[in-house]
Amino acid sequence: MEVLDAKRHKPLEGGASFTLSNRLFRGLWIVVWTLTARWTPPPLHAWRRFVLRSFGARVGRGVRLYGSTRVWYPPNLILGEGVLLGPGVNCYNQGTIAIGDRSVISQGAHLCASTHDISDPDFQLQLRPIAIGSRAWIAADAFVGPGCVVGDGAVLGARAALFGKAEPLTVYRGNPAQPIKQRSFRPK
Amino acid sequence: MEVLDAKRHKPLEGGASFTLSNRLFRGLWIVVWTLTARWTPPPLHAWRRFVLRSFGARVGRGVRLYGSTRVWYPPNLILGEGVLLGPGVNCYNQGTIAIGDRSVISQGAHLCASTHDISDPDFQLQLRPIAIGSRAWIAADAFVGPGCVVGDGAVLGARAALFGKAEPLTVYRGNPAQPIKQRSFRPK
Amino acid sequence: MEVLDAKRHKPLEGGASFTLSNRLFRGLWIVVWTLTARWTPPPLHAWRRFVLRSFGARVGRGVRLYGSTRVWYPPNLILGEGVLLGPGVNCYNQGTIAIGDRSVISQGAHLCASTHDISDPDFQLQLRPIAIGSRAWIAADAFVGPGCVVGDGAVLGARAALFGKAEPLTVYRGNPAQPIKQRSFRPK
Repeated sequence: MEVLDAKRHKPLEGGASFTLSNRLFRGLWIVVWTLTARWTPPPLHAWRRFVLRSFGARVGRGVRLYGSTRVWYPPNLILGEGVLLGPGVNCYNQGTIAIGDRSVISQGAHLCASTHDISDPDFQLQLRPIAIGSRAWIAADAFVGPGCVVGDGAVLGARAALFGKAEPLTVYRGNPAQPIKQRSFRPK
Repeated sequence: MEVLDAKRHKPLEGGASFTLSNRLFRGLWIVVWTLTARWTPPPLHAWRRFVLRSFGARVGRGVRLYGSTRVWYPPNLILGEGVLLGPGVNCYNQGTIAIGDRSVISQGAHLCASTHDISDPDFQLQLRPIAIGSRAWIAADAFVGPGCVVGDGAVLGARAALFGKAEPLTVYRGNPAQPIKQRSFRPK
Repeated sequence: MEVLDAKRHKPLEGGASFTLSNRLFRGLWIVVWTLTARWTPPPLHAWRRFVLRSFGARVGRGVRLYGSTRVWYPPNLILGEGVLLGPGVNCYNQGTIAIGDRSVISQGAHLCASTHDISDPDFQLQLRPIAIGSRAWIAADAFVGPGCVVGDGAVLGARAALFGKAEPLTVYRGNPAQPIKQRSFRPK
């Protein structure tokens, strides 16, 4: 779907970056989520999955997310089975955000799938999808920047800020995020 | 205007750091903003400019700010033409914050214009104005600390934390923020 | 008190990490705080201390905290005399958080006393208490990670993220936090 409104797209002059139909859809989305989901107690994950799917998100079985979880645009969200989006997580998915099976995104994390072209005098918006593999952990308050790719089983520590690629089964920390060690699973 | 209440100013003992008239003014400000602006949909920038100016902020033409944008004390805010303060931006302007024409402060950024004297047994509050030039970009969730000066066209990347001076047309990243490259504009 | 529910404790499969009685208690806590305290104006510290103590927190004389301060589980909170928890502070005290006399935790700081075992295929939750000494300052938006120990008079700068030990009378900055100088008090 074409959502960027190229003709009017001059952020510095106040023109909207998105089409009118996109903006109306999102207005409706915010109203519906606020009225039907934002205040719901934690255990009602099935209801919130239903609301999110109704607006076009692809949501796997057993996904858990909270009333305080924020999704900018449901059609740009793809969640595998058993994904957890904690309280206060901000999916700023102007570009698509895809998250693989059983990955955990902890409280307050921010996934930001767009940026601006800083060499463009019009400061044009750029969509940069985020792809997170399976069994990854984005810990509390961490930031995953535009265009990031996070490998299977990777860990981005609390408050870390990632701006590139996270290798599979590797633990990252800091801002900007640096690899600090390998991750391995004990036999069950 | 003298807002610090020097006679009573002992933060560790619970005395208020600001005069009674300042505190009453801010109480009124919070109530009025909450009732008239916080819930307003994004396009109503003109109305929110009006509310902000009514409380003493100097707000240039075409400024955009959102219902979730927070301003601690409007008289300490100076915004040039076309400035954008995104959703959730926190202008903690106990000291003055001035922002030049067409600068963009993205979602969730925090501008903090005060600190405490850590050598003072009374932990006295210190006001440290922030000055941001024109065409600068403070990206999502970035932090601009007390006393910072940001040059024209400088970029502070997402989640970066600045504690000193940002040179013009220079891109900074990380916490603490470090320069990573120069910025130049393509011809239009 | 045993709050972790070991039998069902498999975060990746959606089982609750805490006992039913713990979850009901916290549900009641959130409802009561929202109705009686969240909206209260800043000067009503004595009332908010009363509410917090009623749910089992140990709160010293003269403690100040705000309606927007968040406490996950009051029985796991120990505050010395004159402690200040600023607006928006997040005490995520799944493990115990103890803070010594006259320490200041500024606006938006996040104290996070738990983590997950990243080598465990079940991703088990781990409680890691936080201990902060007296006259310490955790500045705006800083993060104190699981298991951290902060010495008397230490300073964690704005937005800094601590993952280990902060020595007494030492100033830290950055993410991850690094020591940058000593702190000393002027004679009064």
